[in-house]
Order: sequence, then structure tokens, then C-alpha cells
Amino acid sequence: MTFPVVGMVGGGQLARMTHEAGIPLGIRFRILSDTPQDSAAQVVSDVTVGDYRDLDTLRAFARGCDVVTFDHEHVPVEHLRALQAEGVTVRPGPDALVHAQDKGVMRARLAQIGAPCPRNRIVADAADVTRFAAEGAGYPVVLKTVRGGYDGKGVWFARSEADAADAFKAGVPVLAEERVDFVRELAANVVRSPHGQAVAYPVAESVQVDGVCDTVIAPAPNLPEELSAQAQRLALTVASELGVVGHLAVELFETRGPDGTPGILVNELAMRPHNSGHWSMDGAATSQFANHLRAVLDLPLGDPRPRARWTVMANVLGGDYPDMYAGYLHCMARDPGLKIHMYGKDVKPGRKVGHVTTYGDDLADVRERARHAADYLRGTIDE
Amino acid sequence: MTFPVVGMVGGGQLARMTHEAGIPLGIRFRILSDTPQDSAAQVVSDVTVGDYRDLDTLRAFARGCDVVTFDHEHVPVEHLRALQAEGVTVRPGPDALVHAQDKGVMRARLAQIGAPCPRNRIVADAADVTRFAAEGAGYPVVLKTVRGGYDGKGVWFARSEADAADAFKAGVPVLAEERVDFVRELAANVVRSPHGQAVAYPVAESVQVDGVCDTVIAPAPNLPEELSAQAQRLALTVASELGVVGHLAVELFETRGPDGTPGILVNELAMRPHNSGHWSMDGAATSQFANHLRAVLDLPLGDPRPRARWTVMANVLGGDYPDMYAGYLHCMARDPGLKIHMYGKDVKPGRKVGHVTTYGDDLADVRERARHAADYLRGTIDE
Repeated sequence: MTFPVVGMVGGGQLARMTHEAGIPLGIRFRILSDTPQDSAAQVVSDVTVGDYRDLDTLRAFARGCDVVTFDHEHVPVEHLRALQAEGVTVRPGPDALVHAQDKGVMRARLAQIGAPCPRNRIVADAADVTRFAAEGAGYPVVLKTVRGGYDGKGVWFARSEADAADAFKAGVPVLAEERVDFVRELAANVVRSPHGQAVAYPVAESVQVDGVCDTVIAPAPNLPEELSAQAQRLALTVASELGVVGHLAVELFETRGPDGTPGILVNELAMRPHNSGHWSMDGAATSQFANHLRAVLDLPLGDPRPRARWTVMANVLGGDYPDMYAGYLHCMARDPGLKIHMYGKDVKPGRKVGHVTTYGDDLADVRERARHAADYLRGTIDE
Repeated sequence: MTFPVVGMVGGGQLARMTHEAGIPLGIRFRILSDTPQDSAAQVVSDVTVGDYRDLDTLRAFARGCDVVTFDHEHVPVEHLRALQAEGVTVRPGPDALVHAQDKGVMRARLAQIGAPCPRNRIVADAADVTRFAAEGAGYPVVLKTVRGGYDGKGVWFARSEADAADAFKAGVPVLAEERVDFVRELAANVVRSPHGQAVAYPVAESVQVDGVCDTVIAPAPNLPEELSAQAQRLALTVASELGVVGHLAVELFETRGPDGTPGILVNELAMRPHNSGHWSMDGAATSQFANHLRAVLDLPLGDPRPRARWTVMANVLGGDYPDMYAGYLHCMARDPGLKIHMYGKDVKPGRKVGHVTTYGDDLADVRERARHAADYLRGTIDE
């Protein structure tokens, strides 16, 4: 048997869904999980429990893997460079991944390649934030720790210099960004393989609530064709210029200029399967997870085209109601076309514990079905 | 967490693909596998290795399972009755499953419920086969061991009394059946839940080569609507009358009467996900595996409707070429819409080691793509 071994660092839901996509490929899949109870560790046969911040743990895990990839971006790049030097194939590699780890590095590189970004620079303290505001952006200013933030964590909206002080309390480097008056958020998802083949998924709309992705609609409704093509080209350029291998999510702001001209600005990058691409599991010919695996294995990529006119994904967040399974009866009976994806995670308020997908020809109906199921499973509604 | 534990007896590809379908449901899935290397044991986290013919092994496996189901029909019904008596939920139950284990019991019951079958009766010896032939069917006669046959094993085509003797050498009960002059083979796949909900998949055409399923086309091309409805009604009746819970495959012969009237006859029953339903993984809104799980958990069933005009599944049989993975490069590059499903099994000539699926609007194209990929992976063609 020459079927390869893919090692994924991380035991979260992205690893869980990658395993699901790997089963039909016949590959062998192993994960490095923080605990034996992690989302992916519940369903994967080959689990190493250990700390991804420890180089020896990574070394032992990588032994026998044909390629090592990631369900998160937190593995120190110096460890990845050490593994590479020892002959381990790491995809995406550290030179790409650093742009998803460090927002300062990311912004500097995006500026080099001419990718449109909000005004931004590293700021030293609250007074420096005021200077940044005075340079043109004005208050409010968005402050982000350059490392470690996600889902609204490590992000502040400073309306004044007094507000801005909060972001510096941890003593870590902070990036200031202009607060963009955007129309909506978009996601341009692409997958790139080592030999340079790339595919682009339809640009999706990502609806955020309280800084967390709530709903994704694919394709983004009423997106001008030119803007859609521009977003896809941009994501393909970023993937190519940064040497990304695997799935790349480019989170975008859709903007309108003073004269109403539509535009896009890059918000964030993620170099792994991404929440904004979950719709592809039920809505595209090839899911982001299957294509991520094909890319890191340097196999030809699969068709990224949608299988339905509209696909809507809604995240299921933990609520007050801990028993998500009890909701299946009503949701499945109400909507035989509903696709439920639960992650095996304990319910905690606000935690992403699953998602649902619906598809069809009538966007309003497809949205309502997804919204209803997500709210019902969470316990927000009871009929 | 109230997510249930489903135990599946068997570690073959059906258990492997059921695990794949169970991951998004968030359920816990365990298998009883003959060896740690079995197809499903490679990808399932919770594996018990043991012999399903041993009641104590089954007992230990069933402990903590909310429901026990099967990837094959070979578990002795007396063991299942013992488990039931001890409070284990077994789906399908032994009273249904016996019809898939014993062709004599199956034929007698189908006659009772008026399901159209080839002429048949249990025969005692070769001379009795000649008497059966004289009763109207004539030679050749199909002889089948009532238990344990599959994929052409345990089946004889006897052209004469001398031929017939072979079937009696093992000393096991033998069923004689009229050799049906059929137009083609069909499969009517349905899923039924304990509270009596049932769904019917589109009737598919099953193309057999040397007694082994080679290609399945869904829906069956040029099938008269009336015959399709008749086949679906028949399968739903069988499921209901026999008390099947889970997936039921009714393998059918499509016939023409002397006046050209189309008809159907029941060939075989399988009470588990079935090769003739693999197309549903890529071609239907809900796969047979997801619906089998929903049925044995008594959850509302999912939409069985096709997602494409035509879906074709071709089995990948082992050939002389042991390295199936090497073929991915060419097959995936040639056809980005191809869906490959490999089972992790060692290649042996004639063994089912995987399947491929294609779908689209043009049947000739869809068939050619599936055929090409299956032949290329097997090594029958090299371009």
C-alpha cells in the first residue's frame, strides 16, 4: 500500500471534518490533539495527545507522516523550520504560515504585493494610537494584538485615547487599523497546491454577529461580477505570492467609495480550512476539506463549483440548553433537506459547537431554514 | 452529552462509510471488527476486535451501545434474540434479519405477502432439481445455498441433473430457482425507521459482470414510471411487512412477459447499506449511510432525492496492479468532478477495493467518466 499518511496538528472541528473528507481518499490520517476528548480525537483512529508548542512532541508526531498540515495557525514557525530542516514536509510551510500568525507581517506583505488593506500600522501605546488616527483614519480605531486573536478576542474598538489604553495592558505588540465603514463582509476561499494549481470557490458573504461568524451565504447575493472576480483574483494572488499550500481564506470588507464605487479590502487571512468555507461540504462539488487534503498531498484539485443555486451555512453556538441532540427530532422532521454537522464539543455559551447547511433555489427560504435550525438547536426558539 | 452510541457489527467498507456519515451527526460510533486492519477499523476511533459468532463477545460489545446494527447479515439470529432479551436494542431485529440470512425463509415470506418472485422451492438432491424443472421452470435451474452466499458465491447455474449435483456436495440446504430471462437488474433501495417512516431512493440499474456488481446507474435509464413506482411500492411493502429497520436493498429482475408487458421479480434482499446505494453518497441529498443511521436511531429520515440528473457508480475491483494511489494523479487531473472512495483494503484480483462516482446531465459522458476511472485505477487501461 502506498497510500500516504497525513498528520494534522490540532484536534478541533477542522481536523474532525478533514478526517471525514479523508476517509474516501483512502489515506491514513493522524492528529496531534491537546486532549483525548477533543472534537477530532473522538472520531479519528490515530491520535497523538501532546502539546504542539513542544518541538520533540512535534518531531515524534511527524515521524512517518508524508506531510504535516494544521487545523490552526499556532505552531511556532521556528519549530516548523526545524522540522523542515530534518526533512519533514510541512504544508503550508512556515514562510507562508507566518502571515497568518502575525498580523503585522501580514499587513506589511500585503502592502508589498499591492493588496488593498485598511490603513494600518504597528502602534506603541495609546498616544501613538491618537497619532495614527490623526494621520487620516480618525477615531474609532481598531486595535488588534498582532498574534493570537480570533473570533473577536484580542480585538478592541477604541473610540478615544482612553479606550485605546486597554489594548496595551498585556504588553504585546499591537496593530492599529482604520475602522472600515464596510457594506458587508465577504470571504474569498481558494486552494493552492505545491505545483501551483489553484481553484477558487465562489465568493461568499459572511454575516458576523458580535465578532463571530454567524451565517455564510454562497455565493454572496448581488455581488457585482467584476467585484467577485476581483476578490477571487486577489485571493489567488495572495496564495501564490505568499506560497500558501492548502486552503486559504481571505476575509474581506466590501466597501463603497465616496462616489459609490464598490471595492474590497483585506481583513484577515487563514491558512487552513475555514468557517467561511463550511458551506462547501454540502454545497460544492468538492469540499474545502477534500481540496485541502488534495493540495497538501500535491494531488490535482477537485471542482470547487457550487451544486445548488444558493447554499447557506449557519453556525450553531452553545446556548443555555446543553442537549443539542434532543433538537434533532424537530429539526429533521421539519426539514428533510437540512444538513447537521455537530462537533462533539461540550456546550458553552457562545462556543461554536456545530453548524447546519441548507441549499436550494429560493434564497429567503434557504436562509430561513438554516436560521431556524441553528436557533432551535441552540434553544433560542422552541418551535 | 446525550448523543447516542451506535455499535455496528462488522469492520468492512460499509462500516467505514457509515462512520463517515456518522461524524457530522455528532454520534459516537463503535465497531466490532474481525481484525484491527479491517477497512473500517483503520478509520474508526472505537474498535472492538472480536468474533461476531461468539455471544459473549457480542454482549461485551453491545454494553453501552444505544443501538446495535450491522455491516453484514451473518450474526446468528439466536444471539440477537439473546441480546434483545437482555435489553439490547438491535436494528434491524432478528425477526427481520432472518429473511436476509436464509433464502428459503425469504422466499416463503415473500410468497405470503404476494411479492413477485421467480418460481422456487427447497430441493433435496439432484433428482429433486429435475423434478423442480419438470414442474414448469425447465433447465437451466439456479441453485443457491440458502445461507452464506454472496457475489456469485454459493450459486450454481445447473443445465442438467449432472450439473446440479455440485450444489449438494457441501451438504447444506439448497434452494432451486427458475432461471429468469431478465432484461436487466434493478435495485429498489428504501430506508425504514422503527416508528414506520420510510423513504424510497430512485430505482437504480445494477449492471453485473460475472455475478459481481460492476456499475450502478441512478435513476435506471428508460424505466417506465409505472414500473419504477411498482418497484418502490414493493420495496416499501417488504420493509414494512418484514419489520425492517434501516436500509433495505431489494435486488430485482426487470422482465418482459410474452406480450412484452414489463414486470419485476425479487432476486435478493439485503438489510444494511448496499453496493447498489453507494451512488447516494455523492448523488442524493441524503446518503444511504446517513439514512441508515437516522433510521436505527429512530430519527426523522433525510431527503432521498437525487442531486443530479444522472449519477453513476462503478466499483473498483482489484486487478494485477497493487498501487491504486498512483492512479489518483491521472484520474483527478482528467476529471475534477470525479469522486473516489477507497476502502483501505489490500488489492486482490476481483476484490471490491473501492468505488468511484460521477454525476451530470449527459448519461453517456457520466458513464464514460466512471468507467474510465474504475478501469484506470484497476490498471485495465493506462491512459
